[in-house]
Amino acid sequence: MTGVFLGLFLIAAPATADTLDDAAKRGSLKVCVVEGAPYAMKTPSGRWIGHEIDIGQRLATDFGLTPEFVPVSYADMMSRLGKGDCDLISASLAIEPDRLRQAWFTTPYSESEVAIVAAGAAPVRMADLDKADVVIGAVAGSPAVLLTRSKLPAATVEEFPDLLAAERALQGGAVAALAHKAPIPRLVAVRSPERYVVVEGEPLARTADAFAVRKGDADLLNVLNGWVEARKRDGFLPRTNSYWLTTLDWTERLKPRAPAAAKK
Amino acid sequence: MTGVFLGLFLIAAPATADTLDDAAKRGSLKVCVVEGAPYAMKTPSGRWIGHEIDIGQRLATDFGLTPEFVPVSYADMMSRLGKGDCDLISASLAIEPDRLRQAWFTTPYSESEVAIVAAGAAPVRMADLDKADVVIGAVAGSPAVLLTRSKLPAATVEEFPDLLAAERALQGGAVAALAHKAPIPRLVAVRSPERYVVVEGEPLARTADAFAVRKGDADLLNVLNGWVEARKRDGFLPRTNSYWLTTLDWTERLKPRAPAAAKK
Amino acid sequence: MTGVFLGLFLIAAPATADTLDDAAKRGSLKVCVVEGAPYAMKTPSGRWIGHEIDIGQRLATDFGLTPEFVPVSYADMMSRLGKGDCDLISASLAIEPDRLRQAWFTTPYSESEVAIVAAGAAPVRMADLDKADVVIGAVAGSPAVLLTRSKLPAATVEEFPDLLAAERALQGGAVAALAHKAPIPRLVAVRSPERYVVVEGEPLARTADAFAVRKGDADLLNVLNGWVEARKRDGFLPRTNSYWLTTLDWTERLKPRAPAAAKK
Repeated sequence: MTGVFLGLFLIAAPATADTLDDAAKRGSLKVCVVEGAPYAMKTPSGRWIGHEIDIGQRLATDFGLTPEFVPVSYADMMSRLGKGDCDLISASLAIEPDRLRQAWFTTPYSESEVAIVAAGAAPVRMADLDKADVVIGAVAGSPAVLLTRSKLPAATVEEFPDLLAAERALQGGAVAALAHKAPIPRLVAVRSPERYVVVEGEPLARTADAFAVRKGDADLLNVLNGWVEARKRDGFLPRTNSYWLTTLDWTERLKPRAPAAAKK
Repeated sequence: MTGVFLGLFLIAAPATADTLDDAAKRGSLKVCVVEGAPYAMKTPSGRWIGHEIDIGQRLATDFGLTPEFVPVSYADMMSRLGKGDCDLISASLAIEPDRLRQAWFTTPYSESEVAIVAAGAAPVRMADLDKADVVIGAVAGSPAVLLTRSKLPAATVEEFPDLLAAERALQGGAVAALAHKAPIPRLVAVRSPERYVVVEGEPLARTADAFAVRKGDADLLNVLNGWVEARKRDGFLPRTNSYWLTTLDWTERLKPRAPAAAKK
Repeated sequence: MTGVFLGLFLIAAPATADTLDDAAKRGSLKVCVVEGAPYAMKTPSGRWIGHEIDIGQRLATDFGLTPEFVPVSYADMMSRLGKGDCDLISASLAIEPDRLRQAWFTTPYSESEVAIVAAGAAPVRMADLDKADVVIGAVAGSPAVLLTRSKLPAATVEEFPDLLAAERALQGGAVAALAHKAPIPRLVAVRSPERYVVVEGEPLARTADAFAVRKGDADLLNVLNGWVEARKRDGFLPRTNSYWLTTLDWTERLKPRAPAAAKK
């Protein structure tokens, strides 16, 4: 657990920092995103789309700014934020204790469910997986790891560096199931319904997902908290959360378009 | 949009400010209010009544203080707050990005709906107004302006300096409808049901309404946030919001009373 | 009301304070608790159990720390917190104005109901108690005092220094009823159903209960706010609140166990 406390002083904002004033001078809001479906994805033509992209776009526009998306990883996001590479992290980050030690979190702007998709076509219940010979994959550092260990104590959790590696392990049969944030489990099952099935019943857990800002950046924190309250009420956040986190309609936007020349 | 960023440094509290300590020494809590129904209104006898008056009264009393209501306008409220003419603004202010740049907002203490009242006695649907020849009035600077433009893109929005001017335009036929916060649209329709009707269906939007304090006034922000949580749970805020924002019972209190001499 | 404003400057954290860093160096999180059912109780074997104990245990563990419970009283808790005897107060403290003047409160982690238990076996309604000859007991300084005065204006409220004294007054017939936070009223009635009955209908009030930290301790406030959001969503807080505040199952854990030697 000591790793949690490394770099305690990295993410403190200088007392004179005024993140939004600096952004206004620059004309852009720098938003750290972590590439991954359905949060921040590149279309075949290289354009960013996703849950965090729609949110970052609206947030920047609301303050008269242009969004500048800065791709980071879960491993380096906190140091990138601390160094000022971005003004905030928008990655549907589940609020978790180790993250709270490294940055300040806003009021949650969405909730996510952690669910399990299992190999097989017949219905699978949670109890079917809570056995000593079952191996369940999860992405290292994600809340799914601890949640699976806690809810399915008899099973073995195998950690993978990223979602792609975990999905390959499921495809190759190295793990019997994959625990991850919604809508990934459902997306895997919808793509190959003859091979995968979402585990029935309650999700493993729900997480509260929020923006992260540098510790001490009280003004940006207050601005973002207010923005979240306003955009919850006016329908923007419910609509955006619903589209990206509960439907799979957006998958169409990732398909390569037929070249114009081929059209009649 | 650059106008949004004017006066960035106006509303910062000095590091040593202790708003509530100063209020305690003075014995009064100075509350900026914007005159308008049903928020802050003068009775024929010159007494303040309204949603914000009840809230400011309770807030001050809870801290052993007398409320001192300071009338301001939407145009100057932020500079008045910044200059210290009041300790906070209580005006059921919808949390909006340009306002978040100028002050810190608390946890919302109420929600408002923005609705439309139209001339006519027959039922009117939203789609009936989304036409090129329809002019809809709204108060300049209110969320209703942008909301109407966004929801009824074919119609024309005409801005008025205040609610009185907008109501006169509706009465005179200069605009076909008026978009404003509840309960005003319903109030207009109830007063002259043969002439006006509230547009059917969902309201244009819901807003989150909160107190504004000077940027940096972290102590007052925390005190007000806690007060809102406590008064939501104990029934005071739900009761006060319901009375002023969903009933029209309070209109009785604005009528001149019969002189005592005329009574038997 | 002036007593509210005594000791205004007592509870301010020094600008350089980093409560969680200090706790990490020490290895423990110091949590002020107020002894009382069902919040913080000692088992016959001297072990702490209760609502706040489970919460403090989980909170400390989540940050890699050991919880250290520091018993305080309602009378001295704020000065103890101010002196640094603990890092936070966890006592299901109802957020109330006088407390907001002395410490910063987090997002509420539970809600409590204030209810009334009356002497007698026949059903009792609220209106039955709102009479000039009825005396109702409550603990001095608890929200129940003001709530009872406000809801039952005809009755007399008698204040007692602590819950034990108030319960004795009920048993001895000095008061006809006792107003207190749930689940105490129900607990009294369940123990002696032939002697006491919970008053029917809506509870007197609901309170929002939160952690208190030193004024100025913005980092710990943000960490705790995030922790509350996370533990609400993942089920820990709903489960813990339900067990301690709505069931009486925990009363079993306070009974002395039969000595091991007596077992067959």
